[in-house]
Amino acid sequence: MRRLKITISYDGTNFYGYQRQPNKRTVQSELLNVLTKMHKDENLRIFASGRTDAGVHAIGQVIHFDTHLTIATDTFKKALNVQLPYDIRVMNVEEVEEDFHARFHAKRKRYRYIWDCAEVKSPFRRNYAVFADRKPDVQKMQEGAKYLIGTHDFTSFCASRTEVEDKVREVYLIDFEWHGEELHMIIEGNGFLYNMVRIIAGTLWEVGIGKRTPESIGEIIESKNREKAGKTAPAHGLYMEKVYY
Amino acid sequence: MRRLKITISYDGTNFYGYQRQPNKRTVQSELLNVLTKMHKDENLRIFASGRTDAGVHAIGQVIHFDTHLTIATDTFKKALNVQLPYDIRVMNVEEVEEDFHARFHAKRKRYRYIWDCAEVKSPFRRNYAVFADRKPDVQKMQEGAKYLIGTHDFTSFCASRTEVEDKVREVYLIDFEWHGEELHMIIEGNGFLYNMVRIIAGTLWEVGIGKRTPESIGEIIESKNREKAGKTAPAHGLYMEKVYY
Repeated sequence: MRRLKITISYDGTNFYGYQRQPNKRTVQSELLNVLTKMHKDENLRIFASGRTDAGVHAIGQVIHFDTHLTIATDTFKKALNVQLPYDIRVMNVEEVEEDFHARFHAKRKRYRYIWDCAEVKSPFRRNYAVFADRKPDVQKMQEGAKYLIGTHDFTSFCASRTEVEDKVREVYLIDFEWHGEELHMIIEGNGFLYNMVRIIAGTLWEVGIGKRTPESIGEIIESKNREKAGKTAPAHGLYMEKVYY
Repeated sequence: MRRLKITISYDGTNFYGYQRQPNKRTVQSELLNVLTKMHKDENLRIFASGRTDAGVHAIGQVIHFDTHLTIATDTFKKALNVQLPYDIRVMNVEEVEEDFHARFHAKRKRYRYIWDCAEVKSPFRRNYAVFADRKPDVQKMQEGAKYLIGTHDFTSFCASRTEVEDKVREVYLIDFEWHGEELHMIIEGNGFLYNMVRIIAGTLWEVGIGKRTPESIGEIIESKNREKAGKTAPAHGLYMEKVYY
């Protein structure tokens, strides 16, 4: 047996998220379909760096699994891409140490959030960026973001139904970039709670349109109360971009 | 009555092209649905600068029609965008002279053709660029393109089933640009025959991958024989970008 690490990219539009669910089209079930056939093994298991919700995209989701197949990694990649649907692509296949774990060994993750700030919603980007109908004050958003950098209890930025007990995470950076009329937010941290990036995006957006002050972000963190933060920004603006090991 | 010129953008993926057809979803029928309701006029007619085939996109298709409604052009634009499906957007509404004609007054048109030349087909761009699996020699494509510039009989670059008699057109420019791993071809001319841009794209692509020489393009034009040119490139790489009046 050898362990393979695969990096995949997917368009989340037509998936009910990453994780397998009965009678729903998910990324994990599509991957399992193909891998089970290749391995003739009904019990094959795959492990991802983390889940993504319905509509959320991935540029560099990472998965691992064990295989008895001895084919070269590049051939493996091609075989997977021939069989997978076009909204999932394998970008890289790599042999790793037998104790490598896509989820537990992840040290740092990068997400991207995209708003379409054009006057008219782009018909081409309607599933890939959240139409926002105005241009926010990015400097204010960047000021508000400073309060989030560092190690904090992110209870206020976590969906309240989450079961994780330890809500302390470290955020390394939050940057904003204009790409034409699209505003991109790039965020990196050692890990993110359920809906954390989307709640941060939604709250910083409210700072950008003057509904909150940059300073209020510090107060929201201290309150440890999800009610104090802004709305959860829509799923289709979010991309899981990169996982560092 | 006043005549309105509207500029629309659409994602061609889920349309059977621009032109109305019975029981098919087309751009024209979606526009007519909305405009007929707004005007309570079953006989309202709309005129486009030209048709687009199934899967072909538009950034700046132009349409005109006559209206008795006196609402401001900007309000008109908003009303249309509220009612139209998200894969068609009205970018601009303008009042024009009563003899303006979207098709007959078009002086110059610009199209764009996009190839995705990444190693792995992008899941996000699968409907918006043609995956090409290798990087062509763009200098050779540009050399081949020179033969197409100017006034020529483009019979060789026209779908053979077309009924137009006069196949002389003038091509003003053909440029290539890299946008990351995507290659864009921009072409402008005084008008284009049926499938002309896609046959030019397909033939220049064959020059780019060494299947034909740049000089062969001159011979293809002279032959006035569709069989001599290359394959018609796929619809989903093509964008009607701009119509000049």
